[in-house]
Amino acid sequence: MSDIKTQALACREASLTLAQLSSADKAALLEAMASALETQQDAILSANEQDLQAAREKDIGSAMLDRLMLNPERIAGIAAALREVAALPDPVGQVTRSDTRPNGIQVSKVRVPLGVIAMIYEARPNVTADAAALCIKAGNGVILRGGSEAIHSNTAIAQALQGALRQAGIPEAALTLVTDLRRQTMLELLQLSDIVDLAIPRGGEGLIRFVAEHARVPVIKHYKGVCHLFVDASADLDLALKLLIDGKVSRPSACNSLETLLVHQDIAPVFLPLAARALLARGVELRGDEATRRLVAEAKPASDEDYAAEFLDLILAVRVVPDLAEAIAHIRHYGSDHTEVIATGDEANATAFVAALRAAVVMVNASSRFSDGGELGLGAEIGISTTRLHSYGPMGLEALTVERFVVHGQGQTRVPIRVD
Amino acid sequence: MSDIKTQALACREASLTLAQLSSADKAALLEAMASALETQQDAILSANEQDLQAAREKDIGSAMLDRLMLNPERIAGIAAALREVAALPDPVGQVTRSDTRPNGIQVSKVRVPLGVIAMIYEARPNVTADAAALCIKAGNGVILRGGSEAIHSNTAIAQALQGALRQAGIPEAALTLVTDLRRQTMLELLQLSDIVDLAIPRGGEGLIRFVAEHARVPVIKHYKGVCHLFVDASADLDLALKLLIDGKVSRPSACNSLETLLVHQDIAPVFLPLAARALLARGVELRGDEATRRLVAEAKPASDEDYAAEFLDLILAVRVVPDLAEAIAHIRHYGSDHTEVIATGDEANATAFVAALRAAVVMVNASSRFSDGGELGLGAEIGISTTRLHSYGPMGLEALTVERFVVHGQGQTRVPIRVD
Repeated sequence: MSDIKTQALACREASLTLAQLSSADKAALLEAMASALETQQDAILSANEQDLQAAREKDIGSAMLDRLMLNPERIAGIAAALREVAALPDPVGQVTRSDTRPNGIQVSKVRVPLGVIAMIYEARPNVTADAAALCIKAGNGVILRGGSEAIHSNTAIAQALQGALRQAGIPEAALTLVTDLRRQTMLELLQLSDIVDLAIPRGGEGLIRFVAEHARVPVIKHYKGVCHLFVDASADLDLALKLLIDGKVSRPSACNSLETLLVHQDIAPVFLPLAARALLARGVELRGDEATRRLVAEAKPASDEDYAAEFLDLILAVRVVPDLAEAIAHIRHYGSDHTEVIATGDEANATAFVAALRAAVVMVNASSRFSDGGELGLGAEIGISTTRLHSYGPMGLEALTVERFVVHGQGQTRVPIRVD
Repeated sequence: MSDIKTQALACREASLTLAQLSSADKAALLEAMASALETQQDAILSANEQDLQAAREKDIGSAMLDRLMLNPERIAGIAAALREVAALPDPVGQVTRSDTRPNGIQVSKVRVPLGVIAMIYEARPNVTADAAALCIKAGNGVILRGGSEAIHSNTAIAQALQGALRQAGIPEAALTLVTDLRRQTMLELLQLSDIVDLAIPRGGEGLIRFVAEHARVPVIKHYKGVCHLFVDASADLDLALKLLIDGKVSRPSACNSLETLLVHQDIAPVFLPLAARALLARGVELRGDEATRRLVAEAKPASDEDYAAEFLDLILAVRVVPDLAEAIAHIRHYGSDHTEVIATGDEANATAFVAALRAAVVMVNASSRFSDGGELGLGAEIGISTTRLHSYGPMGLEALTVERFVVHGQGQTRVPIRVD
């Protein structure tokens, strides 16, 4: 048996112990994990220094270096996040339905852990702790396969967390860090459909497509967010402007930021000059259709690719549309089913917009930037799914569980049985 | 573009219309579909006769012929099933959660259709109507790829159902029957991950493994049911005997039938002779371990394969176990996560049994044969999932939907925005 299969089987075996822990035990375990990160801060920082050293030699760029870098404040932040997860309500054991059938059997649907979750991610070492905490809180074993850039940091963090598992009497394999980073080994992990219940890739589109392409285990994926704001003719101008600025400028690199603005032609002559002034003052480049460019001299011409792009930058595609139907048609064509926003004063148009779109999150008069597990009340977020199965949109702890049936009877049978 | 991709895109486009139908419209549509099957009974029966003729020439066996065969009663039964689905509560639009966040945004989770579902199945022509009805009731487009043995029957049934769609003003592509039955075309369908939201294979293990192996779209699968009954030391003898007989004899070919009996050693000397007498009288062959064979002279020796087998026949594997823990260990090793049953008078043992097992359905003092969508109160069943994601166990209409987020605000932004 290959090493990775042996590791995955051990994780699955350990997950059976995790699945039966009480909520209090899991909370205490996560508290202990947070403390372990703090007490082993020096070891983690020196491991991180090794990663940073290697990264500097490879000249990987400052954004990547920043993602990789740990310091005492960041470790404190990771520990605090673990304590927040510890304090969240436990989804496991929740009874989501219960009724008694005419024959007297009592049927309940009860949340149970998924089993074993493989997280495939890139350079951020905080994911090692965050993802492990969420998976374990929901009673799952977790197999962590991070990027090679962070291997020393990830190893040090995993060792701290495993120490807490060991002290709680839980097999360390419940949290398994893959240190054999060959692509072939990842492929093998993604084929273990009898052992791994779910793979969650987190990172760039290349990584996610690679995982989706090669996995035989179920994958929940999030490709990209091409989020639109449609400003309806009846929109309040100030409200629409606020949603636009927040959506484009507050964090352009986030997947829930706006990439395209659609404006109803009746309000465009008033709204677009205001919007352009506010955005240009904030350093945003505008790329518009002809109607936009007639109203906004500074706008460059928009290409078809611009309307399909996830800029993740201070760039906004703009289009004037004749009506709500054309806005919907545009979003259906170019959208990524992530988050769509309408600014409107018309209840019927809001309802039509929500009903017509398939997106995981649809906002009426609220910023696209609320499309986030924390902001939507999930407590914490393991990822955002644009897969229309199991979980759609921001995923919290509940998304790491599944409902199963538990039936209590008093000897009921499907057909009458006479015992001789 | 290939034909199958063109068809799938048309189905997806049509699914947007289906997704927005009211509950009343969908109910009326399904009623019309039921009537269309009845009024086009002659055409369906003569198409079925073509399939039967071809099947007889191929000498496919009487069980297969029976599955393939339609007659007026069976068509009436299919129409009645469609009317039952019409009358079920509509899951689409159900609000499963709603709360107001501290910043005033109102967050709801709302059920929406999955989108486009591909059903891959074998010889039973009734699946064409049953699966289509359930998918459409939940607002989904459906692509049906049945077996070649039933191609004429399936085509006639699909044409009747499409007539009802047409009369309701819905594009026929909402229900697409694949008539190009080349394996290559099915493979292509299973790769359309940007168009097809879910594939559900229904049929033998070979078909299911083929689909799971080659799909790039998400697959919900059900391999097999190796269901166990554990008779605890504290079990009521009569009750345990009834569950055993119902589970093994009432329909041996069903996946929720029992394949293995585990008996606590303290009750085995009393229970096993009773059980053996009742089962032998009903034609069941027993295959047991040594302890069983000491108590039941008629039992043949059981091999390791017998404990892993889904007999789907009047054969039962039997083992005497020293305690609950060993019963759990046996089921964890040999079980298929389908349905597991405990007969016990001890509440603590029942709780431990339920908690320790991963199975989709766990029964306490009730027959494994209740592991069925209708019996568990789902109204109808599209399949049984042993995939631990999205839906686990019998799947009803809800399993053909997903929850998404709808947010209503009054201009809230993630960061404070000052409009100039």
